[in-house]
Amino acid sequence: MAAIKVYGNRESLATVLVLCCLNEKELQYELAQVDLGPAGAQNKPQYLALNPFGQVPTIQDGDLTLFESRAIIKYLAKKYKGQGTDLLGNSLSEQALVEQWCEVEGQSFYPLASSIVYGTFVMPLIGGSIDRDIGAEEKLNKVLDIYEERLSKSKYLAGDFFSLADLQHLPWTHYLIDACRKDRLFTSRKHVNSWWKDISSRRAWKMVEIPL
Amino acid sequence: MAAIKVYGNRESLATVLVLCCLNEKELQYELAQVDLGPAGAQNKPQYLALNPFGQVPTIQDGDLTLFESRAIIKYLAKKYKGQGTDLLGNSLSEQALVEQWCEVEGQSFYPLASSIVYGTFVMPLIGGSIDRDIGAEEKLNKVLDIYEERLSKSKYLAGDFFSLADLQHLPWTHYLIDACRKDRLFTSRKHVNSWWKDISSRRAWKMVEIPL
Ligand SMILES: N[C@@H](CCC(=O)N[C@@H](CS)C(=O)NCC(=O)O)C(=O)O
Ligand SMILES: N[C@@H](CCC(=O)N[C@@H](CS)C(=O)NCC(=O)O)C(=O)O
Repeated sequence: MAAIKVYGNRESLATVLVLCCLNEKELQYELAQVDLGPAGAQNKPQYLALNPFGQVPTIQDGDLTLFESRAIIKYLAKKYKGQGTDLLGNSLSEQALVEQWCEVEGQSFYPLASSIVYGTFVMPLIGGSIDRDIGAEEKLNKVLDIYEERLSKSKYLAGDFFSLADLQHLPWTHYLIDACRKDRLFTSRKHVNSWWKDISSRRAWKMVEIPL
Repeated sequence: MAAIKVYGNRESLATVLVLCCLNEKELQYELAQVDLGPAGAQNKPQYLALNPFGQVPTIQDGDLTLFESRAIIKYLAKKYKGQGTDLLGNSLSEQALVEQWCEVEGQSFYPLASSIVYGTFVMPLIGGSIDRDIGAEEKLNKVLDIYEERLSKSKYLAGDFFSLADLQHLPWTHYLIDACRKDRLFTSRKHVNSWWKDISSRRAWKMVEIPL
């Protein structure tokens, strides 16, 4: 079997998500570095033919070219269900709850987390001023209150098994904590804290050379 | 088989999405109206026990309680694959492309569409001033250029079959056109225009009592 080709960049959190999933699934991959620097390799015709949005990551697995990190990890989890960690759940209901919490991540957690990361970490890095998006932090507190309640009832978001839904939280939570020093958001909540300690100590995550 | 229970509101586009999917799948449902008015039924303990985010829709299908509209339609499409319109695709690759374009909707189309709808339609309705988010409209133009290119090669987003990815675009595109008069975004692009005419004339969509 040819290795899966990942067009991406180790500094891109969306790429990191896919790499972590590949590790969980114990899959071989080859990383084709897409330089997002001033040269802007992601906007060259060659790359746009793979991904018209000019973003990383994109994968090639046999004949299939696929972009959007969350779609990629779903595909990998499904195609290689029997290999490595199962990330989908078994019954239809379990799988539906995985989808539900994946959507919560994409629609509620990620927009707030990325807004905080851009405002407090990326902006100063690129010479802008810190934009403390107080609104985003307040809203994220409310979202994490719901996680706390949920995680008091089940070990992971979708149930008592680690799934794509938990995995999706790794890159941006890592940045919130390590780049933005927003540890308190997580440590101040007992069950969220245990959950974070658990999922961030997984081998598949530690194997990713995390930016920072 | 007991009818599927939908807690929602006909004025909520996320609810409308689920209703349209139920129609495509030819499924019976019972709509339990959740009044989002000043009373705020979505924030009463009884409803929060079903959906801690206090948002509509939520469904109950047998023992399963599920929220997040995009997760709900995926669940319905999977559980009832053999009934009504197949919305998932057949091969793994087809299904992966459906996921990909669903993610494009959730991550690229929806944030821009909803920002325009709030700025130009909802704000004035609730007594605010029009906030023409020029940035959002410019970005949406770029996204739709990519759709145009894609739809010049396949009849629908994920391929030559109507899928969840197309379905997900119905409610907000309807609002962009009918509430915000942003027809030009769609009519000015040949393939996007044909696609929109096609998907918006589906019986399942016309059966939904669309707000406006
Ligand atoms: N929704 C996409 C987002 C991908 C994305 O934002 N990629 C960034 C890096 S993390 C990128 O390629 N930025 C370069 C650019 O937009 O020019 C996904 O999840 O794959
Ligand atoms: N991501 C959710 C969003 C649901 C949502 O925004 N629902 C709105 C109506 S369309 C709502 O319940 N608003 C009431 C509130 O937030 O108080 C989904 O797709 O189901």
